[in-house]
Amino acid sequence: MTKKIYLAGPEVFLSNARDMLDAKAQLARDAGFTPLSPGDLEIPPADTKTGHGCNINAIDEHMMLEADAVIANLTPFRGIAADVGTSFELGFMCALGKPVFAYTNMAKNHFTRIQDHYAGDVSLSDDGRYRGPDGLSVENFDMVDNLMLHGSILRRGGAIIVGDAAPEELYTDLTAFRECLKLAAAKLL
Amino acid sequence: MTKKIYLAGPEVFLSNARDMLDAKAQLARDAGFTPLSPGDLEIPPADTKTGHGCNINAIDEHMMLEADAVIANLTPFRGIAADVGTSFELGFMCALGKPVFAYTNMAKNHFTRIQDHYAGDVSLSDDGRYRGPDGLSVENFDMVDNLMLHGSILRRGGAIIVGDAAPEELYTDLTAFRECLKLAAAKLL
Repeated sequence: MTKKIYLAGPEVFLSNARDMLDAKAQLARDAGFTPLSPGDLEIPPADTKTGHGCNINAIDEHMMLEADAVIANLTPFRGIAADVGTSFELGFMCALGKPVFAYTNMAKNHFTRIQDHYAGDVSLSDDGRYRGPDGLSVENFDMVDNLMLHGSILRRGGAIIVGDAAPEELYTDLTAFRECLKLAAAKLL
Repeated sequence: MTKKIYLAGPEVFLSNARDMLDAKAQLARDAGFTPLSPGDLEIPPADTKTGHGCNINAIDEHMMLEADAVIANLTPFRGIAADVGTSFELGFMCALGKPVFAYTNMAKNHFTRIQDHYAGDVSLSDDGRYRGPDGLSVENFDMVDNLMLHGSILRRGGAIIVGDAAPEELYTDLTAFRECLKLAAAKLL
């Protein structure tokens, strides 16, 4: 039986969501996996918007329970950090003890992105931490995102591939995904 | 034996992190819980920044494994969505099957915050979804954040308290936290 891999990421929000999900699924099949993606299944009807959201959550969680591993797209989404839904899903899979892999299409690391967010106004404070003008500390761990995301993957022996997509292809460039897939296949298949 | 509750949230990044973590921990104790918070324990030394981040991740994951439940602070952090570390932790606790509670200090829901992010330039597209000028779809589920966060809590019978803090007290107002704690205590103790 082929191994199932859950493809977590913000692709569901794209205007070409179906195409992107299909392209990633096909690449996963080519690598020898059975892909599971949010957006694959029909969502049961609900009476309210909130109920509809819950039904999608139920389906996505069910796919994760079925999956043998996850590849999470941690490319910053509408801001400086990864998509929170994807972050939730990475945590979910870590707790289940399933192999976790991730990639990002942005070469700039977490620290640099936060510096940019503050237009460079980040300085070392008395307590030894870098802080923005609002006093919030700036994580400085040579990581692609928050340490719970990056650290959880490293500690489990998973891989994080850092790509460098053109800005207009931030959500569509599949170079880093392909590399991540290759690593996951080498490890799991 | 008292129940242990993990206090997830972006408080660790605040300039008054210790005070805020202590204040939340004391309120949790007053409610009858044993609080566990990121930042409570000494981090073992590491040779690299990445190694240090991994050590913090290890400690936080260990606390979650020990905890009986979680209260997650989903107040938007440095942008329009919740802190990704907190989102990871919520997913982690959901997968472990532990009771999950959350609050936010921002009354505006996810849909409205994204509308604001696009300065109101959000419109209904041909596929029936609201989209920003960049084509990204705007989740419209009457939820406080991404449906994986809000939906996972609702589906487990947990509570999400929506506060309305003054902008300058976005990360320090504990009104919603107190209410969330009260509900968690009523349910679990």
